[in-house]
Amino acid sequence: MNREDISITISCPDSFGLVARLSSFVADHKGNLVELHQFTDEQSKLFFARISIDGSKLDVSVEDFLAGFDVLARAVKADWQYRLMPSKMRTALLVTQTDHCLNDILWRTKSGELPIEITSVIGNRETCRAAAEAAGLPFHFIDMKGDADKKEAGFREIHHLLQKQEVELVVLARFMQILPDWFCRDYEGRAINIHHSFLPAFIGANPYKQAYDRGVKLIGATCHYVTADLDAGPIIQQEVQKVEHFHTPADLVRLGRDCERRALSTGIRYHVYDRIIISGNRAIVFPD
Amino acid sequence: MNREDISITISCPDSFGLVARLSSFVADHKGNLVELHQFTDEQSKLFFARISIDGSKLDVSVEDFLAGFDVLARAVKADWQYRLMPSKMRTALLVTQTDHCLNDILWRTKSGELPIEITSVIGNRETCRAAAEAAGLPFHFIDMKGDADKKEAGFREIHHLLQKQEVELVVLARFMQILPDWFCRDYEGRAINIHHSFLPAFIGANPYKQAYDRGVKLIGATCHYVTADLDAGPIIQQEVQKVEHFHTPADLVRLGRDCERRALSTGIRYHVYDRIIISGNRAIVFPD
Amino acid sequence: MNREDISITISCPDSFGLVARLSSFVADHKGNLVELHQFTDEQSKLFFARISIDGSKLDVSVEDFLAGFDVLARAVKADWQYRLMPSKMRTALLVTQTDHCLNDILWRTKSGELPIEITSVIGNRETCRAAAEAAGLPFHFIDMKGDADKKEAGFREIHHLLQKQEVELVVLARFMQILPDWFCRDYEGRAINIHHSFLPAFIGANPYKQAYDRGVKLIGATCHYVTADLDAGPIIQQEVQKVEHFHTPADLVRLGRDCERRALSTGIRYHVYDRIIISGNRAIVFPD
Amino acid sequence: MNREDISITISCPDSFGLVARLSSFVADHKGNLVELHQFTDEQSKLFFARISIDGSKLDVSVEDFLAGFDVLARAVKADWQYRLMPSKMRTALLVTQTDHCLNDILWRTKSGELPIEITSVIGNRETCRAAAEAAGLPFHFIDMKGDADKKEAGFREIHHLLQKQEVELVVLARFMQILPDWFCRDYEGRAINIHHSFLPAFIGANPYKQAYDRGVKLIGATCHYVTADLDAGPIIQQEVQKVEHFHTPADLVRLGRDCERRALSTGIRYHVYDRIIISGNRAIVFPD
Repeated sequence: MNREDISITISCPDSFGLVARLSSFVADHKGNLVELHQFTDEQSKLFFARISIDGSKLDVSVEDFLAGFDVLARAVKADWQYRLMPSKMRTALLVTQTDHCLNDILWRTKSGELPIEITSVIGNRETCRAAAEAAGLPFHFIDMKGDADKKEAGFREIHHLLQKQEVELVVLARFMQILPDWFCRDYEGRAINIHHSFLPAFIGANPYKQAYDRGVKLIGATCHYVTADLDAGPIIQQEVQKVEHFHTPADLVRLGRDCERRALSTGIRYHVYDRIIISGNRAIVFPD
Repeated sequence: MNREDISITISCPDSFGLVARLSSFVADHKGNLVELHQFTDEQSKLFFARISIDGSKLDVSVEDFLAGFDVLARAVKADWQYRLMPSKMRTALLVTQTDHCLNDILWRTKSGELPIEITSVIGNRETCRAAAEAAGLPFHFIDMKGDADKKEAGFREIHHLLQKQEVELVVLARFMQILPDWFCRDYEGRAINIHHSFLPAFIGANPYKQAYDRGVKLIGATCHYVTADLDAGPIIQQEVQKVEHFHTPADLVRLGRDCERRALSTGIRYHVYDRIIISGNRAIVFPD
Repeated sequence: MNREDISITISCPDSFGLVARLSSFVADHKGNLVELHQFTDEQSKLFFARISIDGSKLDVSVEDFLAGFDVLARAVKADWQYRLMPSKMRTALLVTQTDHCLNDILWRTKSGELPIEITSVIGNRETCRAAAEAAGLPFHFIDMKGDADKKEAGFREIHHLLQKQEVELVVLARFMQILPDWFCRDYEGRAINIHHSFLPAFIGANPYKQAYDRGVKLIGATCHYVTADLDAGPIIQQEVQKVEHFHTPADLVRLGRDCERRALSTGIRYHVYDRIIISGNRAIVFPD
Repeated sequence: MNREDISITISCPDSFGLVARLSSFVADHKGNLVELHQFTDEQSKLFFARISIDGSKLDVSVEDFLAGFDVLARAVKADWQYRLMPSKMRTALLVTQTDHCLNDILWRTKSGELPIEITSVIGNRETCRAAAEAAGLPFHFIDMKGDADKKEAGFREIHHLLQKQEVELVVLARFMQILPDWFCRDYEGRAINIHHSFLPAFIGANPYKQAYDRGVKLIGATCHYVTADLDAGPIIQQEVQKVEHFHTPADLVRLGRDCERRALSTGIRYHVYDRIIISGNRAIVFPD
């Protein structure tokens, strides 16, 4: 195994000697601690840590190591999860019309910047089919035009696809449909959206138009986890861009695209490298 | 007279040949056009311009020149205003407790960066008296603690002071009181506020606490003209700062101060150099 | 004709009444001045302007209008040029191995953000062939490996291609070869490069490695016109990105790619919309 | 004692189980680890950590705790240092003419943002005397005009003052004299400078003039440790600001002041909170 083969994120009530217990467990089993980040939230009295371990010299199997860690985690009442690296997270991309985020993710995946395996591109329009297929990816068109029943059926179909493809991460890459609650709950912490404003400003539709009407001097984009409460999930990353009075709504759309694709791709990267711990409505992010 | 002695801002319905008419008028009277900015708003079909003129070789008196310009302005149905430079705008600073914006303005005034004459510092707390007086400025304490009548009386007193001191610009340098409507109307376009968030996010009280609770990854400050509608006036300048999960509300306050003082001082500078034209709820700003 | 059909950039010695003369000429011929930017450089006493004109109601043909303008330009000893819009600038992309800038330009061209017609992609490696051909563009491999004669022959071949294809703009999209002087002179003001540092820091090879070794806290990219003096041409646009001690040289390369592609694409946009006037070693840029 | 009463920074060759040993030592003595940052430099194979400890429940005296830690540190061949908090670092400010950095430090010290005790302000001009004395601080004028001997004598006098006042940190707040080598060596790692460019661009005199002449589109400031090699010490913090063609050298000076004072004050803050570990020519910074 290579360096950083095991990544562990953990959260638990703060208590005495936590870092010592965690790091000693790793050292006791000849794990080499490559990177440790910890954070104690003074308000909630919660402890958070991300540990990345070079497991090449472990004195037990990885399975045994993780089993032992689980005992320790239970002792300190921790939620925890691990990921073995390198691995490619199975990721589905949901799109509608605009393809700048899609294109950016495709390029970063190809270049190795995003270690994901794109299972398919799913669109409620046909617009992005060409880009997906040019990248050798299956494209699924889901017709959602029509009444609430049609939309619901569409989401059931998408859900079915994601299940069948064993998707670990759902990326809404400018997917312009509001997800039903049951869908959000099912992919809680595993669905990432890009909203084209610096949230919580300009929630909802047409944020650039709203921004223009308000006469703001900066626009932005927010990458966040999807929750049932629209545009209110834990924020992972935000990008902003200065604008001036002469920028029309169309200019804001143009300038904002750079914020959107960068914020989304960065958010995906943090997620797939397990650099995020969700705590209530906040995302604890250890950037790389 | 020196260069840039006359600065004119103008707004009017867009029509054919406006720049030619304006610049020809200046040239015809031997005014040297030092700087011209124009902007035509495609949506409102309004034309805006800022002209700065070296009047050292005018073939008429400045008064006559302006009288002539007024005739032209009426012909094109323009709102316009002028300022003779250099001049120091008579400015009152309203404060409550925190003094970082006050200190910044005092320093920039002393260094010549802000060409203003501070008529007085007015506070509804005594906290900033020392800083004001150390700078050789009169400090007026206005007691506003109490019921609505007390507040109203306080504002009448402030208004009276401003009138007496012939104040041209009112700067709310972290003044934590909501201005009554009549006051806002009276100083419309002549009162500048700093709000400690990137508006329209976090309108109202405790924006840093709101920002912390929302878990945003950036905080900011907004310099805007005061209107009766709270935190909704034309935005002049916005500054933002990236933050991380480990920043407590107190950290946000600390980091935000730099955004606040910079946005406010920049906004004041643009205003006193006549680099802003207000159009409805938007501020057209020609930065320097 | 549509709005903004004629764009004119002009530079000349500053003199009295220039704006009036220029704008009156436009108005006299029923040209509608859509946008005017002017700048007078106090040091060089040079006047610069960009005028964009809606020519739909001109009282003469465009050719006659331009002929008349030329007479005026000669009277004020101006260098000037015009462009009829909309038009697509014939642009060649030179690449070596990395394809992030190439990919970005391809996407922005397809989306309409960059009004260019890519004549071909020319590479001294085969790496980018696939990306070019997937976009339906001819790819020319020019072998430059070897001694100085081989390189010189390669550049003659590139030059020949550019001439044959009537290329108006040459974009070095991470082209890792130093252009010979005669080539630079021939495409002076028509060749744009991206250098992967915030120039003038880290001129030459391996700027990210240089940046890492120096321990800087920010990295960047610079889009500039190509001149015979390496990395010293007029700067069009610069982007920066904060970095921390834990970023390896490979991280700097990764993070810098976003600066590079954004700075380059912005620079191309400004150039093809005639928003740049070169004055000695400085680029006067009127952003949109 | 309060929380975060002991802050320890440590650097040593990387080895197995370091975090476990360090954190276990703290836990074994009932120290509560408030914050832990670690970083392993892959290139130099060095391990760095900052540990902040709540010592209110230590089972030994602080002195004994530190003595024990020293034994551990020697075992792992570490350089380390500690600071007891809260404490105010004895800091001398060296200035010449401009007072924006001085003013900023004075205000941040007064507001509690910078926990320092300013021992005195030392200037080679009289210009800043008023500001220093208004803040109740002694001002020492050191005449350095003249030949090399005069300068050397001046530095001996400054050095003597610093020694007498038991100064722990020397801040060059726009002090426009080059320090002699012996002085730099004596205050190695304890002297912080602000250079008014984004180093390594524009080393030496008149960086804004250099920036103007080069036509850059961004200017900046760099806070760094002083070394004998001019402007080449470990970089702590860098700030940048976009500029345009219309900005004169004087504008760059004006706009740059904000970068300078912010970079310097941030750098001082990191230093006095022991958030920096110097490693060769690099500064490892754990921001707050």
